Amino acid sequence: MSLILTPLKYFPLVSPGDDIALLISSSIEKMNMDIKDGDIFIITQKVISKSENRIVNLSEVKPGPKAKEVAKVCGKDPRLVELILSESKCVIRIGPGIIIVEHKLGFVCANGGIDHSNVSGLYGDQKDWVLLLPINPDDSARQLRNRLQMQFKVSLGILIIDSHGRAWRNGIVGTSIGMAGVPGIVDMRGKPDLFDFSLRITQIAAADELAAGASLIMGQACEGTPVVHARGFPYPLRDDVNIKDLIRDKKRDLFR
Amino acid sequence: MSLILTPLKYFPLVSPGDDIALLISSSIEKMNMDIKDGDIFIITQKVISKSENRIVNLSEVKPGPKAKEVAKVCGKDPRLVELILSESKCVIRIGPGIIIVEHKLGFVCANGGIDHSNVSGLYGDQKDWVLLLPINPDDSARQLRNRLQMQFKVSLGILIIDSHGRAWRNGIVGTSIGMAGVPGIVDMRGKPDLFDFSLRITQIAAADELAAGASLIMGQACEGTPVVHARGFPYPLRDDVNIKDLIRDKKRDLFR
Repeated sequence: MSLILTPLKYFPLVSPGDDIALLISSSIEKMNMDIKDGDIFIITQKVISKSENRIVNLSEVKPGPKAKEVAKVCGKDPRLVELILSESKCVIRIGPGIIIVEHKLGFVCANGGIDHSNVSGLYGDQKDWVLLLPINPDDSARQLRNRLQMQFKVSLGILIIDSHGRAWRNGIVGTSIGMAGVPGIVDMRGKPDLFDFSLRITQIAAADELAAGASLIMGQACEGTPVVHARGFPYPLRDDVNIKDLIRDKKRDLFR
Repeated sequence: MSLILTPLKYFPLVSPGDDIALLISSSIEKMNMDIKDGDIFIITQKVISKSENRIVNLSEVKPGPKAKEVAKVCGKDPRLVELILSESKCVIRIGPGIIIVEHKLGFVCANGGIDHSNVSGLYGDQKDWVLLLPINPDDSARQLRNRLQMQFKVSLGILIIDSHGRAWRNGIVGTSIGMAGVPGIVDMRGKPDLFDFSLRITQIAAADELAAGASLIMGQACEGTPVVHARGFPYPLRDDVNIKDLIRDKKRDLFR
């Protein structure tokens, strides 16, 4: 079976308080799509964050001494650095224009996941508006899943994604930051390979593979298709999923 | 437009000397698929490596002193470590059961990209057979592209992928190791976002996003669908592509 990734059309610009479930249903209706058991919606964090009003104006942020110090090293706005630090558990690396942190949500990402683009327009020309990640993307995903499952009367998956850089490789890729129904990891350990030679380590980051594929057709920034519908995900949906499944235990992480 | 990823059926087990272009054409014919301008074939490195006879028996490998030393630290077979080191430019980290290296091909990966699964069966029960990466996956991709473009009389892309682990996150994801026609990076720097607020750093690792999405439906090991056909890749194909586009410059890499 094919994996089919379809960007939702007719999705409006999102403002604080908007009902994302309603916007998705409405888009699906206008596109005249049928929704089936096992379908997944992949949603960029930007629209979830906006709907949850995670928008901050830098003019309201007072940088503390640590932020000022870090800002000098990396060359970023000290007010933005203050926000990055307040969104993070700890700093992993500092480079020119970049701060790699362990986010409060557990994953490692650049600049605390704070986004500077696609926000300012909501409030006119000012460039001081930034967007923080949703407070709990797993919760946001679960709520959305409940709403959409009631609406469509089938079992669905929800994946909230962001674009992350990687160690060693150029470019950003779509990466999961919250999920409901979609398994983060599919464990193939111990399953036989084609020749019955037992596989010793094969844990597939299924949610991240889906996040990357969906991100490819979301387009970045200028195109604005923040939701993708996926059909043909090859593994069963599950209720007991959590972004933590995808986060490597610190003790087993060679790159902290 | 949707992105449609379709695993090729009727693809046989590959042996050294097999003609991958022919096997792909034959599969496409049996599936009665039409091939269009801009379509991409994503191929797991295992079948390329096998067709290029990159199979080694560990009993023929004599570990040197450095391999013996590293083997003690990581707990791997010293003969396998010898091969890993000979496939690599340098060692980045050593952990229990794992050696992270800079491969001779330039990218960072675990255990020199040497694969222990899905090989032994070719030669009976022995478990000493391992598979090295193709000597030059970009070249393999270019040759395959030329053959298939002649066959189908359209412009095509070829992506050779492997499953890589990541820093900080659990699980493996499909990752590009060679390409022809498919842009590794799509550069959105300087393009306006939805609100004309210029994006400062947005380089999309388009080939890696496609690699991950395709990998998701290849299944791992026990299912054996090593080639995926992609339609709907949202960027133009290009001739001047190279795996090096995806490799971060050492000087700008905070995680070496």
